[in-house]
Amino acid sequence: MPAIDPERLLSDLRHLRSIGAQDRGVVRPAFSAADMEARRWLKKRYEETGLESTIDGVGNVLGRSRNPGKALLVGSHSDTQPTGGWLDGALGVIYGLEVVRALAADDATRTLAVDAVSFQDEESRFVGCLGSRSLTGTLSPEVEQGAVDNGGVRLADALREAGLAGVPRLRLEAARYAGFVEAHIEQGPDLEDTGRKIGVVSSIVGLRGIRFVFRGQQNHAGTTMMARRRDAATTLYELAHRINQEFPKAAGERTVWTMGRLRVTPNATSIVPGYADLDLQFRDASDAPLDACERIVARLVAEINARGGVSIEATPSRTPIPPTRMDAGLQEHIARAAERHAPGKWQHMPSGAFHDAGFIAASLPSAMLFIPSIGGISHDFAEDSRDEDIVLGCQVLADAAASILAAANAAPGVQ
Amino acid sequence: MPAIDPERLLSDLRHLRSIGAQDRGVVRPAFSAADMEARRWLKKRYEETGLESTIDGVGNVLGRSRNPGKALLVGSHSDTQPTGGWLDGALGVIYGLEVVRALAADDATRTLAVDAVSFQDEESRFVGCLGSRSLTGTLSPEVEQGAVDNGGVRLADALREAGLAGVPRLRLEAARYAGFVEAHIEQGPDLEDTGRKIGVVSSIVGLRGIRFVFRGQQNHAGTTMMARRRDAATTLYELAHRINQEFPKAAGERTVWTMGRLRVTPNATSIVPGYADLDLQFRDASDAPLDACERIVARLVAEINARGGVSIEATPSRTPIPPTRMDAGLQEHIARAAERHAPGKWQHMPSGAFHDAGFIAASLPSAMLFIPSIGGISHDFAEDSRDEDIVLGCQVLADAAASILAAANAAPGVQ
Repeated sequence: MPAIDPERLLSDLRHLRSIGAQDRGVVRPAFSAADMEARRWLKKRYEETGLESTIDGVGNVLGRSRNPGKALLVGSHSDTQPTGGWLDGALGVIYGLEVVRALAADDATRTLAVDAVSFQDEESRFVGCLGSRSLTGTLSPEVEQGAVDNGGVRLADALREAGLAGVPRLRLEAARYAGFVEAHIEQGPDLEDTGRKIGVVSSIVGLRGIRFVFRGQQNHAGTTMMARRRDAATTLYELAHRINQEFPKAAGERTVWTMGRLRVTPNATSIVPGYADLDLQFRDASDAPLDACERIVARLVAEINARGGVSIEATPSRTPIPPTRMDAGLQEHIARAAERHAPGKWQHMPSGAFHDAGFIAASLPSAMLFIPSIGGISHDFAEDSRDEDIVLGCQVLADAAASILAAANAAPGVQ
Repeated sequence: MPAIDPERLLSDLRHLRSIGAQDRGVVRPAFSAADMEARRWLKKRYEETGLESTIDGVGNVLGRSRNPGKALLVGSHSDTQPTGGWLDGALGVIYGLEVVRALAADDATRTLAVDAVSFQDEESRFVGCLGSRSLTGTLSPEVEQGAVDNGGVRLADALREAGLAGVPRLRLEAARYAGFVEAHIEQGPDLEDTGRKIGVVSSIVGLRGIRFVFRGQQNHAGTTMMARRRDAATTLYELAHRINQEFPKAAGERTVWTMGRLRVTPNATSIVPGYADLDLQFRDASDAPLDACERIVARLVAEINARGGVSIEATPSRTPIPPTRMDAGLQEHIARAAERHAPGKWQHMPSGAFHDAGFIAASLPSAMLFIPSIGGISHDFAEDSRDEDIVLGCQVLADAAASILAAANAAPGVQ
């Protein structure tokens, strides 16, 4: 089995961390100077490893193996949140590089083909998972043309500024690959809580959003009697609390829901509010609990609207993301490698966060591997993982990659 | 009985409306150029009526009668909300002027002493009821020194800019007065709804405020399971909804409560909020329902805090305003005058909004008279009342003033 080089792995991770470093974190949003510098450095690193490397027209960096046979795509994203942690997608990107190097250094695996990748803008500066969407042909011209960041910069201008205007865009060669494996920090506390070292992702949870708009009547908080009020906030509190009471009856064990963004107008102590809005987001690894939650919402909204007074309008606040199952065969390879290096200390688990693998899975068999996040913290300068966990995860991934490719390239009947 | 001059009354009201007019409303906040222009105009008008007139060191305009005997103080405030209606306090100010003129024009009442007043900053640019607080000696140096408007302007600077630095401040000569009567638009819909023309205010409701602070733990909305969450917004929704369910059991018929201002941090769709705060304001004409509501709040907060998770801290958000009963004798005079001019079309009613009379009542017998607000609208450019209602209210006030002063100045035994 191929052996990774822990020092080389950690050294490259730390070098990538230094590009856009701020305090303990990293500020390297997609298409920023730091992001493009990181991508050029990565392209060079891929080339030093013997890969044929390209930065495509949306900023994806692909390192293509010159070996024959079915290839495995390994990677993640190197862009960060506006104030991001140092590991997040960077971990999976450097794992890809190290897996290529580890397999190349071992006689038993040196002929296997591993392509390494860093997708662009997973973190939604312009379009979440822009790079993997573009690679899989699911980035529509309308979405691309309408894409503007929070500061009002248009995607087209960011592409031009990054020197990518007119640069060809890659398309995923599905026939080339046995699959895609993305490693990532967990971004949650489950592995740490249970003392486990590796998560083999069973599915990426689906996500739906509903925006509620509450319309009542603004009034004086002293002179308007209760019976006459149409208080938008009162109805918001009722609906939100009843959702929190009802959802557990329909939810699966890992269903999560959040009402973390709201607005009350005019938001003054002495004024009965006439308008409010509220976002509900809910996630699960399968559709059934999400459907059940939607039915509860519809029932509660209908019941409150039937009373008159404040009206509630409920509309989807985003395109739903369907739950995505990870490939069972790839999971099995990762699970075996995990059991070898961390016996009894790994588990199957869904991913509560979305990842590029969710888009790639529509084109290729895909899988994910998690390592523990200290304190479950992510999207924060404090994000971190222990060196030994980082090293272990990469070794598991290298073993799994070798075993996936050995199986995929075995002569029929021999496999 | 003295007869008011409807044309003169409406003409002066319209002139005052023209100072700071904007669209259908008025922008004349305390100490603004328009406010000070209105006060100088009012001082001149008082003088033309034969009153001895002063603008004092906080901007109060007092017109003092030269007649002997017990005097009646009549007026309200001429400052407005940032985007105010044209009547609000202006109505009661011009009523005071017209009552002086009407009594002076009638042989039976020409020797009675009516002082007219326009208080400063009732609308809380710096300190709510600044003028009546100053007159009654209840404006503390600490409150005055700390007073800053929403734009960061200090009261001391506004006073200097208005030319009032060093100008003497009046103190209410309690022994001079038989009482104080303030007329005002209702600012609510009750008179209009019941087809009544005059409200005789029985009390000004008391007001208490509680600020709730909710402390939980901010987290990722995808990777943090429900059982592990400490979601500040979830607890806010629960407490607010349960208050709305429980208060009706303790509330009097006219108890009102409002939770119209809140903040959730970071207020993002995909983040479990770790912090929230919420203001509860509640009002009633007597203390008992307010006490009962406070007990409910204490019970709910204790119950939720006992569960652990998100903690709630509940503290008074303001100095409570106790309910203030209006003087029964003065109410009787106003009620008799109302019955004379609008038989069967008046009622006793509490004032849900606070007024200068609430402060003056601590020093003098005080009363209030309401006229209908069209649609109950106030603190808005659309605020209005019908001319005939404006005229009727002033006539009732003039009659009541004559009768109050006649009684107060009657020889003992003759009354």
